[in-house]
Amino acid sequence: MTSANWIDNQKNLMLFSGRAHPELAEQVAKELDIQVTPQTARDFANGEIFVRFEESVRGSDAFVLQSHPAPLNQWVMEQLIMIDALKRGSAKRITAVLPFYPYARQDKKHRGREPISARLIADLLKTAGADRIITVDLHTDQIQGFFDGPVDHMHAQGQLAEYVRENYGTDNICVVSPDAGRVKVAEKWADALDGAPLAFVHKTRDPLVPNQVKSNRVVGDVNGRTCVLIDDMIDTGGTIAGAVKVLKDAGAGDVIIATTHGIFSHPAAERLASCGAKEVIATNTLPIPEEKRFPTLTVLSIAPLLARTIKEVFENGSVTSLFNGSA
Amino acid sequence: MTSANWIDNQKNLMLFSGRAHPELAEQVAKELDIQVTPQTARDFANGEIFVRFEESVRGSDAFVLQSHPAPLNQWVMEQLIMIDALKRGSAKRITAVLPFYPYARQDKKHRGREPISARLIADLLKTAGADRIITVDLHTDQIQGFFDGPVDHMHAQGQLAEYVRENYGTDNICVVSPDAGRVKVAEKWADALDGAPLAFVHKTRDPLVPNQVKSNRVVGDVNGRTCVLIDDMIDTGGTIAGAVKVLKDAGAGDVIIATTHGIFSHPAAERLASCGAKEVIATNTLPIPEEKRFPTLTVLSIAPLLARTIKEVFENGSVTSLFNGSA
Amino acid sequence: MTSANWIDNQKNLMLFSGRAHPELAEQVAKELDIQVTPQTARDFANGEIFVRFEESVRGSDAFVLQSHPAPLNQWVMEQLIMIDALKRGSAKRITAVLPFYPYARQDKKHRGREPISARLIADLLKTAGADRIITVDLHTDQIQGFFDGPVDHMHAQGQLAEYVRENYGTDNICVVSPDAGRVKVAEKWADALDGAPLAFVHKTRDPLVPNQVKSNRVVGDVNGRTCVLIDDMIDTGGTIAGAVKVLKDAGAGDVIIATTHGIFSHPAAERLASCGAKEVIATNTLPIPEEKRFPTLTVLSIAPLLARTIKEVFENGSVTSLFNGSA
Amino acid sequence: MTSANWIDNQKNLMLFSGRAHPELAEQVAKELDIQVTPQTARDFANGEIFVRFEESVRGSDAFVLQSHPAPLNQWVMEQLIMIDALKRGSAKRITAVLPFYPYARQDKKHRGREPISARLIADLLKTAGADRIITVDLHTDQIQGFFDGPVDHMHAQGQLAEYVRENYGTDNICVVSPDAGRVKVAEKWADALDGAPLAFVHKTRDPLVPNQVKSNRVVGDVNGRTCVLIDDMIDTGGTIAGAVKVLKDAGAGDVIIATTHGIFSHPAAERLASCGAKEVIATNTLPIPEEKRFPTLTVLSIAPLLARTIKEVFENGSVTSLFNGSA
Amino acid sequence: MTSANWIDNQKNLMLFSGRAHPELAEQVAKELDIQVTPQTARDFANGEIFVRFEESVRGSDAFVLQSHPAPLNQWVMEQLIMIDALKRGSAKRITAVLPFYPYARQDKKHRGREPISARLIADLLKTAGADRIITVDLHTDQIQGFFDGPVDHMHAQGQLAEYVRENYGTDNICVVSPDAGRVKVAEKWADALDGAPLAFVHKTRDPLVPNQVKSNRVVGDVNGRTCVLIDDMIDTGGTIAGAVKVLKDAGAGDVIIATTHGIFSHPAAERLASCGAKEVIATNTLPIPEEKRFPTLTVLSIAPLLARTIKEVFENGSVTSLFNGSA
Amino acid sequence: MTSANWIDNQKNLMLFSGRAHPELAEQVAKELDIQVTPQTARDFANGEIFVRFEESVRGSDAFVLQSHPAPLNQWVMEQLIMIDALKRGSAKRITAVLPFYPYARQDKKHRGREPISARLIADLLKTAGADRIITVDLHTDQIQGFFDGPVDHMHAQGQLAEYVRENYGTDNICVVSPDAGRVKVAEKWADALDGAPLAFVHKTRDPLVPNQVKSNRVVGDVNGRTCVLIDDMIDTGGTIAGAVKVLKDAGAGDVIIATTHGIFSHPAAERLASCGAKEVIATNTLPIPEEKRFPTLTVLSIAPLLARTIKEVFENGSVTSLFNGSA
Repeated sequence: MTSANWIDNQKNLMLFSGRAHPELAEQVAKELDIQVTPQTARDFANGEIFVRFEESVRGSDAFVLQSHPAPLNQWVMEQLIMIDALKRGSAKRITAVLPFYPYARQDKKHRGREPISARLIADLLKTAGADRIITVDLHTDQIQGFFDGPVDHMHAQGQLAEYVRENYGTDNICVVSPDAGRVKVAEKWADALDGAPLAFVHKTRDPLVPNQVKSNRVVGDVNGRTCVLIDDMIDTGGTIAGAVKVLKDAGAGDVIIATTHGIFSHPAAERLASCGAKEVIATNTLPIPEEKRFPTLTVLSIAPLLARTIKEVFENGSVTSLFNGSA
Repeated sequence: MTSANWIDNQKNLMLFSGRAHPELAEQVAKELDIQVTPQTARDFANGEIFVRFEESVRGSDAFVLQSHPAPLNQWVMEQLIMIDALKRGSAKRITAVLPFYPYARQDKKHRGREPISARLIADLLKTAGADRIITVDLHTDQIQGFFDGPVDHMHAQGQLAEYVRENYGTDNICVVSPDAGRVKVAEKWADALDGAPLAFVHKTRDPLVPNQVKSNRVVGDVNGRTCVLIDDMIDTGGTIAGAVKVLKDAGAGDVIIATTHGIFSHPAAERLASCGAKEVIATNTLPIPEEKRFPTLTVLSIAPLLARTIKEVFENGSVTSLFNGSA
Repeated sequence: MTSANWIDNQKNLMLFSGRAHPELAEQVAKELDIQVTPQTARDFANGEIFVRFEESVRGSDAFVLQSHPAPLNQWVMEQLIMIDALKRGSAKRITAVLPFYPYARQDKKHRGREPISARLIADLLKTAGADRIITVDLHTDQIQGFFDGPVDHMHAQGQLAEYVRENYGTDNICVVSPDAGRVKVAEKWADALDGAPLAFVHKTRDPLVPNQVKSNRVVGDVNGRTCVLIDDMIDTGGTIAGAVKVLKDAGAGDVIIATTHGIFSHPAAERLASCGAKEVIATNTLPIPEEKRFPTLTVLSIAPLLARTIKEVFENGSVTSLFNGSA
Repeated sequence: MTSANWIDNQKNLMLFSGRAHPELAEQVAKELDIQVTPQTARDFANGEIFVRFEESVRGSDAFVLQSHPAPLNQWVMEQLIMIDALKRGSAKRITAVLPFYPYARQDKKHRGREPISARLIADLLKTAGADRIITVDLHTDQIQGFFDGPVDHMHAQGQLAEYVRENYGTDNICVVSPDAGRVKVAEKWADALDGAPLAFVHKTRDPLVPNQVKSNRVVGDVNGRTCVLIDDMIDTGGTIAGAVKVLKDAGAGDVIIATTHGIFSHPAAERLASCGAKEVIATNTLPIPEEKRFPTLTVLSIAPLLARTIKEVFENGSVTSLFNGSA
Repeated sequence: MTSANWIDNQKNLMLFSGRAHPELAEQVAKELDIQVTPQTARDFANGEIFVRFEESVRGSDAFVLQSHPAPLNQWVMEQLIMIDALKRGSAKRITAVLPFYPYARQDKKHRGREPISARLIADLLKTAGADRIITVDLHTDQIQGFFDGPVDHMHAQGQLAEYVRENYGTDNICVVSPDAGRVKVAEKWADALDGAPLAFVHKTRDPLVPNQVKSNRVVGDVNGRTCVLIDDMIDTGGTIAGAVKVLKDAGAGDVIIATTHGIFSHPAAERLASCGAKEVIATNTLPIPEEKRFPTLTVLSIAPLLARTIKEVFENGSVTSLFNGSA
Repeated sequence: MTSANWIDNQKNLMLFSGRAHPELAEQVAKELDIQVTPQTARDFANGEIFVRFEESVRGSDAFVLQSHPAPLNQWVMEQLIMIDALKRGSAKRITAVLPFYPYARQDKKHRGREPISARLIADLLKTAGADRIITVDLHTDQIQGFFDGPVDHMHAQGQLAEYVRENYGTDNICVVSPDAGRVKVAEKWADALDGAPLAFVHKTRDPLVPNQVKSNRVVGDVNGRTCVLIDDMIDTGGTIAGAVKVLKDAGAGDVIIATTHGIFSHPAAERLASCGAKEVIATNTLPIPEEKRFPTLTVLSIAPLLARTIKEVFENGSVTSLFNGSA
């Protein structure tokens, strides 16, 4: 015999978690009925990150989950370093899981001499060793094309819209985009809510004063309607709080805000709590610690969606099921 | 002396043209006061393209202009082959000039198991040897990020809007997007036309019949206004002609259509001629032969814009001017 | 337990077909006892191709069969787009199957400032995402080296030579190359036909008129012999029909033409039908529709060879056989 | 005339600075008699960095200077983003200048399943678009080989050793390495200080207690000598302060500490101030703000060395000098 | 059914050997209980190497073992060619096994305008098609980072130190580095030998005569001790023989030399035999033919270590064991 | 002023030579009126090569000339190492000059499981840092396509054919290919020699004994003619000497052998001297030392051709001439 043969019939899913949002990783692991792989991760005094896995990763199908709240660059580098360690430790396949894709707003040059940081992030992940990406509600769908490999792009809209339907019905609903760039997304929401009418907030500029917004006005009829104001992410909340005011001025009834990514940088909590919206609905693609929370906030967990996606990616072609029929 | 030194103080701009739209290349060459580089280009009986340049391209700063009308794939391959020949012929730098970026509409996976052909095009150009890209009015700005190198992205809006202003004024103007996805672009037009009001056509779907449009309705007030209906490209003209009808039904006054890329596939000419629009304005990023023309069509030349861009790219940092003060 | 393990013991061969030659794909599928994967493929009005697979391709061992008749560039782009969609749809391995390798004749710079399009094609396939190539009778064997990965290079000669032997015997056979460049291939044919003698047609040029062929003459003795005139491809048939005449003038007996790739561009059918050859034998690496056929044409199917190769590539190391002993 | 020619005889050095250490950039600019290129750089609320240059960078020879103190990952990302913007803005050549190379200590896998972050940094810089690197006193020389391109590796030793010679003479000097890994570097110092004797601190481990240091002892004779204790970087200062104590215990005279990179993370200032060393000499490859300073600290500027290197890289082959004979 | 599925549960380890050190390959094969794959390998008259494997390598997990004695470049090229043949022959994964990493001493630019040949070797292996590397006792650990992929870096120290312990005990042992650059490695030896004391040979240079060694002296106390003089490789033996003399002059007792890589270029055998060392211990990472041997030489086999590593790499995640409990 | 500008009007050609054939480099340098750049190049005892340039190469247009006689792998590695040193030393552009392209005969897989070493060589050169290649008379033209960049492919045929014409006239000449694979090249020779007739030697195989040549016979009429037997390279001379015999047996008159690459491995000199050929003409793309020479050998220098090519590559677009009108 000139070579060695034997039966090799096991695949090995391993879940790794950066330190940005360990609760989410725990929730995903629980959904998958596995444990997050134990690791040592710490910062040197000057900020350099050190990572070491405490179990062999050789031959594994590795999923590296990292969320990206502030300080975002810290978490980007940690994920890159984890991926490098997995590549050099002989993982078989490496999937970067980014519930919130960092730098997604810098997806084009708005003016000359700017970076396209969202493309840079895709290239950095590839360079570090990521074979594929799983992410949720990209700021623009085109970011999928920035990565040279498979991107599984999940949407939280179904979950959010279902919540709205259950709690507010669809009879008197109107879907509102806070600016002209999200009207297409709002149209998808309108379809999901039984063909609800549509409106958006239009910023007009003073032709005599370049680059300065003159006034915001609502395009579309919102009078007396329960408005679902949607956005992919809410950072400091200024735009969205302003939109609530414009809607109220235009005669809107209740205003519900729905977003996938609750960045909620200061002073978002204050603004959202006091802007007049009846409820703010977000998912936990980013951690929302106590100090960012406020009474009208509802947080839905993205973990079941991530877990289901990881399972699908892992199991391709398998006849055996990881989940007990629940997924 | 161990090495040879001498004065080398000349740069060499060479312009190459595919066979899709030679008139445009001639116009650009005239603006630059140069000649299109002579070449042999022909098709073998089975469709294979052969290209050979009739002058040395060694050390040149090569600009390869190709337009992309039907049969589009033919022209994509021709441009790739020209770039390959330039690379192997020792051109110093190769810039692909694509007035109309092919496959721009396939800039994301609309559903699973689709290609992202716009990214593929960027990668093919890079692989063939293109160092940089010049293009006009991409379907979405994010396509810039598909290419791994500099992309000079020009806009025809200024030229088109100026034409509208001169011929229709801005007093009673309303800017209209034909669908929810272009409202952001319409907003830029509105700013350019002295803060004109905005509207868009909203497609509602029947919740009982998935994926079927129930009706189109205008969101925003167009009553009695001169509507400038804008789009980046018009292919068969169905959507845009439908939008004219919806606008008219909603009480609009004159409707003017403005677009950068006049693809005008059959039966666009008939549809646009008879849809009720007062005028259709397009540029010649794509050739518009006689059979595609109709009485209400106005074509503006994109050549000055392309020539000015080529000059800027070529001359970086130079204090000497190619143009005689006109650019 | 920190990770999930389970039995994963299935591999999944999927066959995809471009639209250039669906009959061939059907034949290959039948040989493999599978179905061609259903897909949506259509052309937009301006020639842009859209492709979408109707079944999940995740984790599959994908074979993408495309033939390359006119309009060849259309089919090249379609295959690239299919490969891109497979890559982004998470196929495990992608094999491009090209029965006729496009641009194979442009495998070098014949003169300066030419492309090497055959290398370009290899790079485009790689860039799109092809891991490997299966092809038949490359114009020159060196094209294998253009691709950075495994190339399975099949030969139809065995099948063609067997047909000749069965129908014409080998006693009075002479193998003839239509030009100086194919003598090496003819020598292999001669070996396969029991050491038959060899000849070739030599083009002499007038030294006073550069680049003009003065006359063709046969080098080698063909007098009274049944000549098997061989070539890898026949396009418009001019060279090969001329060679028949030269052979007849030199006293040859019957002339049989054998080729792998029947491009048969107009007016090949007329020329071949009337050139005096007794029979023309080709394979169906390219579709040969009715209008290209003529009474003396015999077409052998390449499907069994392709199917056998696909099976070998797919099954490496497997102890289970797809075929029932017939391959 | 088929192409445009003209005189192009200017090169254009542009210096860019990240926000980590603007004083150093100003010093370098002053040495080069230029200005740091103006730019907009700011952080979004969630930590995302935005950069835009306020002058055209087209065709420039760009030097991107970034220092890497805490929060180090922030500054790594900023430099990558600046490089991306330069690449997309058509800079001709991009040189990343890193006075302190981040993650240099993670230049190998100390144990299994670790990253090699120093290699990762090199790859990230390349991916973003850096053509070359200038750096100072790498933790190990081999890091040069991590970058796929030219690395100009400067040494501050000359400057530091000259300071020691001028202030302490060389008669009674002994060069000491704080651990076994730096003895080679100490040997170079000994050569630079007229062949001074050498010593190092040897950590012995208790064989009964794995991985625990039992005691430190000096190997080499330091009795009564002025010890120059050298290291490439000092972070929290624990090791180096411990080494001073061991030297004193071994009978050393004055102890002088010399280092290139003064990271000086808390509580380095306290430790170094109170450890018994007569003087601590460092350069400003990293910013050393007031709170990190202490009475016995002397800081030498690395700016002249960086400026001289930038000039050499910029001027290759030029006969014209940027500096007035001073470099 | 649209695709073919079947059970595929075998992996296939194949071991390939270059011609530099077939005995080592045989030993490794024996440990693994397999055969070295038969191949044809020969040199053309001008030195070109030809390789062809005599069994199918399709789908195999290929390990390509090559040792690198003189003529080293010959063996480097042979290994690259073997890897190329495996890549083109559809091996599934290719691991280059280099017991002695060639050009490891050129791991940095010692002065300007030098290559970093150790990085070049890593890049050449990658380009040829190696997915991963197995090697033993790199000259510096950082060379791991030169390869863009997993490197399994084995250490022979354990085996060598165990031999020393068994034959010489650890009571009166002193570990000595022959130069300042290896003190760190010596420290690891000291730990392995129960915390033995440490010394090294310090080369001082005459400040008046640049670059000339003035004298060697021992730093550390070796008087009366059994010295284990260690180095990663011994080439002509000049340095190490000189170190023995210096140690003896300093009053050392017996001197034992231990090294992983016995290059033993002429006149190493003579020098080592007569230098006064009691025993020289080496492994067979390089072949040590009769003419290089001498009475005090002991050679330990590295084959068990290599075999164990290959097994680990091959078996990742497998529950079935190749070895019968012995590894 | 924010940036530094100044006149930069000098280019710098530098010629580097490997150690395989210094005489050729000297001849080329003399033709270019420059000196070969001084360097240190030596072999370590185990065969490792060390190279260091003695002048700055920063910003140079570097031409690295290496010939490839036995031991060929040594010279391949030396050229790669020189290129690596130039890349890291900041040469602006690197051209590898290979008068004889190594491994050109392995330009395809003759059978399965073989390498394509000629492609591998191209990839290794690229990886080391070569931007372009200059070479002479490739074994097959397709090898140009193996390199991803410009290849200047020179032909010695003009020089050789001119020599034949001057010394033997063209009246009674017949051009003969020694095997079926070179008939195309022979046809080009025939054109160059005023349309001389053509012949080739055909190897027939015994159908009962696979893979064994039964007999060689001449195809074409050589009776009484002066035969010019051509080949791109002659290694041990067996084939070519056999061809002379077959020609003589077929009634040929004088036989002249012409080849570009005189490898002349033992026993070529004896064979060629005694085979009956009247003269053997070769160039010095490879060194032909005294022991390989024989009375009927004529060696033409390839240096003028190489120098002219280097000059053309260097001077692209320059109006200043390096040569004094002679080129």
